[in-house]
Amino acid sequence: MDLEHLRQRLRSFAGDRDWDQFHSPKNLAMALAAEAGELLELFQWLTEEESRALPDHADQIAHATEELADVLIYLIRLADKLDIDLEQAALDKIAANAEKYPVEKARGRATKYRDL
Amino acid sequence: MDLEHLRQRLRSFAGDRDWDQFHSPKNLAMALAAEAGELLELFQWLTEEESRALPDHADQIAHATEELADVLIYLIRLADKLDIDLEQAALDKIAANAEKYPVEKARGRATKYRDL
Amino acid sequence: MDLEHLRQRLRSFAGDRDWDQFHSPKNLAMALAAEAGELLELFQWLTEEESRALPDHADQIAHATEELADVLIYLIRLADKLDIDLEQAALDKIAANAEKYPVEKARGRATKYRDL
Amino acid sequence: MDLEHLRQRLRSFAGDRDWDQFHSPKNLAMALAAEAGELLELFQWLTEEESRALPDHADQIAHATEELADVLIYLIRLADKLDIDLEQAALDKIAANAEKYPVEKARGRATKYRDL
Repeated sequence: MDLEHLRQRLRSFAGDRDWDQFHSPKNLAMALAAEAGELLELFQWLTEEESRALPDHADQIAHATEELADVLIYLIRLADKLDIDLEQAALDKIAANAEKYPVEKARGRATKYRDL
Repeated sequence: MDLEHLRQRLRSFAGDRDWDQFHSPKNLAMALAAEAGELLELFQWLTEEESRALPDHADQIAHATEELADVLIYLIRLADKLDIDLEQAALDKIAANAEKYPVEKARGRATKYRDL
Repeated sequence: MDLEHLRQRLRSFAGDRDWDQFHSPKNLAMALAAEAGELLELFQWLTEEESRALPDHADQIAHATEELADVLIYLIRLADKLDIDLEQAALDKIAANAEKYPVEKARGRATKYRDL
Repeated sequence: MDLEHLRQRLRSFAGDRDWDQFHSPKNLAMALAAEAGELLELFQWLTEEESRALPDHADQIAHATEELADVLIYLIRLADKLDIDLEQAALDKIAANAEKYPVEKARGRATKYRDL
C-alpha cells in the first residue's frame, strides 16, 4: 500500500464517475487549498499547546483525519494530472533543504534560509 | 519507498535541527496552507485548459513540483505529530466517498452529495 | 459608513466578549485564510463562466456574501491589531501596481510584472 | 476615502489594462486565497506572542501591510464582480454574530456557537 496504489484507486474513482472533466489542475489546486483551509479552521483558536494535545481528543482527531485524507487525495490527483512523481519530488526537496539548512546553522532556528 | 519512509526521513530532518519546537500541529497546518496558497498562485490566471497543458512547460512543472513536494512534506509531518496514518485515512475516505457518491448518481456531476 | 466605522464596531464586539485573548495576529491570519478557503470551495468546480453568472443564483450569492463578509471582518481585525491603515495600504499598493504594470505593457496580459 | 472609492479605483485600473477577462470571480477567489497564504507564511513560525509584537518590527510590518492590501484589493474586486455590497455584508454579519454569540454565553470562550 503506497502512493502509487492510491493514485490508481483515485484515478479509477474519478474515471468511473466521469469526473476528469472537473479535475483540471486549476480546480484540483483550489480543492486542495480549500481542504487546507478546513484544517486551519480546526486549529485557528487553539494555542500551540492545545494543538499538540489534539491526539487526546478523539472527536477532533477524527475530524483532522478526514481533512488530512482530503488534502492527500487532492494532492495525489493533482500530481497525477501533472505527471509529477510525488515521492521523488519529496525526496528531491528534502535533499535540497538539507543543503539550504545545514544542521550547524539551522539548529533551533526557524529563520528562512536566506537569512541564516 | 513510501509514506512511512518519508515520515522517518522528515522526522530525522527536524530532529537533527531541533525543529520540533516549531512543528506544533497548529504551525504545520499553517505551513501546509501557505504552500497550498503558492500552488494557487501558479494557477490563478490560467484557464482550465492552460492548466491542463502545464506539463508542456518545463519551468512551470518544475515550480509546481516543488510546491507539491512542500505540501506533501508538511502533510506527512502534521500526520506524524497527530499520530494519524495518512494512507489508512485516505483509504477510509475513498470508501466513504464511494458510498456518498454512487456511480449511477454521481456520473458527470460535480454536485455535493447532499444535493444528489 | 466606512472601514473606520467597521473597525470600531468589531473592536467593541471582541472587547465585549473578552475575545482579544484569542485575536492574536497569528490566529486572525489563520481565520482569514480559513474563510478564503470557504470561498474557494464555492468556486472550485465551477467554470469561469459559471462563476461570472453567480449573481443569477440568489442562494449562492447569499453564501458568497457571508464568506466575503467574514474575510473583511478578519482582515479589519488583523489590520487593527497590527496598527495598519487598510485604506492607505490599498492606495499605496494601487500606486505601486500602477508603476509595475504600466498600461501599455500590461494591457491584456496576466503576466507577472517581472516578465513584462 | 472609503470602500466605494477603492472599488472605483480598482475598476478603472483593471479596465485600463483590459484585465476584466482575467478577473472572473473564480480567479479572484484564487488570488485572494493565495494572498491569504502569503499572510500565513509571515506568521507560521511565530508564537502568538511574537505575532502580537510584529508592530515593533518595521520590516515585517511593511511586508504585512502589502499582503493585507493585496487581500483587500482582491476582496473588493470580487465583491464588485458579484454585485455584493461589502460594507452592508459586514454589518449584516456582525448583527448575525451578535445573535449567535450573546455576550453572556460567549464571554472568554472561543467555542463555535453550536457548542455554546
